[in-house]
Amino acid sequence: MKLLVLGTVAYDAIETPFGKTDKILGGAGTYIALSASYLDESVGIISIVGNDFEDECLDLLKDHNIDISGIEIKKDDKTFFWSGRYSQDMNVRDTINTELNVLSNFSPVLSDKDKEVDFLMLGNLHPSTQLSVLKQLNKRPKIVALDTMNFWMDSALDELLNVLKEVDVLTINDQEARQLSGEYSLKLASRKILEMGPKVLIIKKGEHGAIMFGEDKMFYGPAIPLDIVNDPTGAGDSFAGGFMGYLAKTGDCSFENMKRALIYGSVMASFCIEEMGTKRLEYLSKKDISDRLQDFINLSKVDIN
Amino acid sequence: MKLLVLGTVAYDAIETPFGKTDKILGGAGTYIALSASYLDESVGIISIVGNDFEDECLDLLKDHNIDISGIEIKKDDKTFFWSGRYSQDMNVRDTINTELNVLSNFSPVLSDKDKEVDFLMLGNLHPSTQLSVLKQLNKRPKIVALDTMNFWMDSALDELLNVLKEVDVLTINDQEARQLSGEYSLKLASRKILEMGPKVLIIKKGEHGAIMFGEDKMFYGPAIPLDIVNDPTGAGDSFAGGFMGYLAKTGDCSFENMKRALIYGSVMASFCIEEMGTKRLEYLSKKDISDRLQDFINLSKVDIN
Repeated sequence: MKLLVLGTVAYDAIETPFGKTDKILGGAGTYIALSASYLDESVGIISIVGNDFEDECLDLLKDHNIDISGIEIKKDDKTFFWSGRYSQDMNVRDTINTELNVLSNFSPVLSDKDKEVDFLMLGNLHPSTQLSVLKQLNKRPKIVALDTMNFWMDSALDELLNVLKEVDVLTINDQEARQLSGEYSLKLASRKILEMGPKVLIIKKGEHGAIMFGEDKMFYGPAIPLDIVNDPTGAGDSFAGGFMGYLAKTGDCSFENMKRALIYGSVMASFCIEEMGTKRLEYLSKKDISDRLQDFINLSKVDIN
Repeated sequence: MKLLVLGTVAYDAIETPFGKTDKILGGAGTYIALSASYLDESVGIISIVGNDFEDECLDLLKDHNIDISGIEIKKDDKTFFWSGRYSQDMNVRDTINTELNVLSNFSPVLSDKDKEVDFLMLGNLHPSTQLSVLKQLNKRPKIVALDTMNFWMDSALDELLNVLKEVDVLTINDQEARQLSGEYSLKLASRKILEMGPKVLIIKKGEHGAIMFGEDKMFYGPAIPLDIVNDPTGAGDSFAGGFMGYLAKTGDCSFENMKRALIYGSVMASFCIEEMGTKRLEYLSKKDISDRLQDFINLSKVDIN
């Protein structure tokens, strides 16, 4: 089924202990859509870029079967740009530069066909922008998922709480879950957050995996230890893309199927971090994905009772 | 089968955000043996206490069927004492006071029957003390496991590397694995550490679970999110006790059975942190343990292929 992704399509410049890039393709929408494209054949992006955005980046998305008709190209402005540097342990990153450019006045407008979408992923953006997309829909999608970050909890909490009332799945990291709920225990945090609107909460814990709460159940999906982690940029978005891509492909929105979706999300995130930027997500094979999936299954498989 | 535990039997005074104790029963040997006693019926401790050690603490161990004949009571000295305080997030603890007392001159002496033991757990102590126990054995146990910490990596690395050559299973936390190997990636770290002697490495990650490496395989056991974490003291030791207790009970030392043992270790650690000190480990029922085991199984169970 159709998965619509709202999110930035941008340029990044990244420095990690293992590599450094010039301006390269980035943005939450890019990572989410690329990742989802390996699972679902009908992925579209709603986004905005500037006059400096290169055709080859758009071609890359098109080559992955992604519908880019929802990407507005603004002729008199430049593409959103972010640059950052990761610390030695990769768990801390400093923003060096953020140029909002086209994002300053981004008002997404949905096509008639996108207003009928079944699966909607609201990538990390101002909560009001996320809400404005929801308000344009002609019918309630089967699943609306939302990703956000501490920045909006600090600067636009009321708007965030507003949009949270309308979503099914929220993906945030552990620090953000603690900030949003005011609870240190993730279990207590999940209870408070699930009262804010979402039916399902996924807490992303990076190298420690992800944990999902909903329907009075919990599910823990581990992250797989890798030899090499080159660049964590986009890992959370790749996770969300894998998760929503799998749900859209299967059309099954039960908690049981969300467990499978979470494992697929973890698989896609594990690829993302292997190379700088989107590189590794550009050339995955079906076998790469099924092999990695098997690694994940084996990782926590135990015959016990 | 008989499980022999080398480790401190001590007094602790603990302060966490959720509670504060006077001098209470503590020590690695205590936590390991108490935890193991719920799985294996033949657990013994090798340790030392002073003239201030109360009979009721010894009785508590005896009531759990633990052989305390290997606990030396030194009449002219006092019991090892440690006091510490945990930070708000419980991941950092500051030592307020350490009084070595009887530990200053601890030279464990094994009885003839203990020299024939099948399962040996060397709790966190000076590596030379750990090695001295190994040297007294009449035959090689089926499994020797060792727990240690960064303190010995800083102060007695050569001795630690010596004893590591002789053990089957090493349990340390993620920071310690990185320090010991000089590798940030836990996968690369595990490869280097397995070259130092152990056949199996278990990296304890606290609230993030535990990961086991060996025989070119990996196994990840999650930690269960709990409503309340009152006191992390002894969690790692309770984990080791559950792990070794299960191996001793089953007598099966395959990697496959070690996976089950790791889950039992996680179960016991999850109880330990629910109350201050050893409290929760003092009154567990079989049903408590089987219910919690089921929670762990459900936590990461997914039907996927």
